[in-house]
Amino acid sequence: MRIACFQSMGQRRVGLVSADGLQIAPLALPAEDARGGALALIERLSAGEPLPAAEPAQPLAGLRLEAPLPRPRRNVFCVGRNYQAHAQELSGSIFKNAPPAGMDWPIVFSKVPETVVADGAEVALPTEVSTQIDYEAELAVVIGRGGKNIAREQAMGHVFGYTIVNDVTARDVQTRHQQWHLGKSFDGFCPMGPWIVTADELDGRDTRLRCWVNEELRQDARTTDLIFDIPALIATISRGITLYPGDVIATGTPAGVGMGLVPPQYLKPDDVVRIEIDGIGTLSNRFV
Amino acid sequence: MRIACFQSMGQRRVGLVSADGLQIAPLALPAEDARGGALALIERLSAGEPLPAAEPAQPLAGLRLEAPLPRPRRNVFCVGRNYQAHAQELSGSIFKNAPPAGMDWPIVFSKVPETVVADGAEVALPTEVSTQIDYEAELAVVIGRGGKNIAREQAMGHVFGYTIVNDVTARDVQTRHQQWHLGKSFDGFCPMGPWIVTADELDGRDTRLRCWVNEELRQDARTTDLIFDIPALIATISRGITLYPGDVIATGTPAGVGMGLVPPQYLKPDDVVRIEIDGIGTLSNRFV
Repeated sequence: MRIACFQSMGQRRVGLVSADGLQIAPLALPAEDARGGALALIERLSAGEPLPAAEPAQPLAGLRLEAPLPRPRRNVFCVGRNYQAHAQELSGSIFKNAPPAGMDWPIVFSKVPETVVADGAEVALPTEVSTQIDYEAELAVVIGRGGKNIAREQAMGHVFGYTIVNDVTARDVQTRHQQWHLGKSFDGFCPMGPWIVTADELDGRDTRLRCWVNEELRQDARTTDLIFDIPALIATISRGITLYPGDVIATGTPAGVGMGLVPPQYLKPDDVVRIEIDGIGTLSNRFV
Repeated sequence: MRIACFQSMGQRRVGLVSADGLQIAPLALPAEDARGGALALIERLSAGEPLPAAEPAQPLAGLRLEAPLPRPRRNVFCVGRNYQAHAQELSGSIFKNAPPAGMDWPIVFSKVPETVVADGAEVALPTEVSTQIDYEAELAVVIGRGGKNIAREQAMGHVFGYTIVNDVTARDVQTRHQQWHLGKSFDGFCPMGPWIVTADELDGRDTRLRCWVNEELRQDARTTDLIFDIPALIATISRGITLYPGDVIATGTPAGVGMGLVPPQYLKPDDVVRIEIDGIGTLSNRFV
């Protein structure tokens, strides 16, 4: 299933997108359950409840999709330095104090839920705060069944599905505060979408991810190249920390970010960042 | 006002604690508004709405208080290295890569909302994950009126009130992941309470904070010693990031944490950590 959110007659609706991506069938969810986007549906399905009935499909064209989780239940878990080539491209900057290759533990930080915006939304560059705003194309895991101290071998059973995020980052702010939380958390800094693809339709452990800035291909990698793979991330984050349905884990970005170019190329007004992940779709946002 | 939460006949209630700390008068808030603890009240009052009517006071003794914000609206903002003497005591460990004294920007990270537990709650030591669990006594600022790019001069007008938090930390986990998010986010790692004292009754910029472990005084400082004071923290965090009513900012801990002792003394089963902040009260938790 592809689960998307949209507004209809002043209310948020959750629906299923057809295989050809042209239609959406709204689900008969109570309005209060749809208010949090896909969250209540994820909770229901993860608890073993049946899928709510679908209403007649309508054309997706003309609808404005929202992010599938318009405001995640808590900060998004994000992973840093999780592709070897990306770690190398930033070894002189944000990773200069990091242990050498072969580190034993992933870097995990968060961004506030209000960073999330939809596919197609314009993202305001906070130029009064940063002159080094950068993109990071990432596969995001959406947790289904919650749990704590989840074993690596069980981890994939806790994956509800996948979506795309752009882990937008203000590099100057990221580095000057040492901890990355603020530099990752500016309003609008987490484009997410276009929808969630459930785990029965996609294995996020092996898919291709590409990112273009203004039609120039900048990032191109497979998730098989993750240093810490999805089971490792779920096992590590859930050690002593309960995961809940609807939690989002952004798995890290591959090489090719703007800071890694020579000279660095940061985002400027009217740049369009388009991310494509095989088996999910496309997330595209203009920066203004 | 002192705003506290408690359970009564299976429902969460929000009430005002009397000056002598012996009585609590429940507020006539709709049940759904009380579900989030003090959050809806903070939103109402910050929007200029009147205080709901108070019901007859009842004795506080016999009631079990909950945290005033039992599940904050998003991750708690936390500040690191914000007292000079604490920065010095950890200069060989968690701050070994930090710039020398005189740094220009605060360290800001987060802990998940589900870390919050009440005054008096037992906190389970996640001994399967960490052998270096430490306390950090902190004054927490609760945001009232939201805003973005808040000027230092206007910042105190956005403070709703103050409470106490224990920013419990697994030192080994904090350091091995480089970013501190996981080492700060274990279930139960944010005791908070006993209540919120509103800003008209306390100026958090100048109060005394003490922390005892099993009746041994470990931390004793005034908030006048903060490197980045409350207006600076609000101004910094709100640069490009909208703050909302009910956001919590833990302002950092002074010298005297267990890791800073020679030899280090980490928490062990049956240790009781008691934090007192003048003008607020006492937060006490047993670790098990």
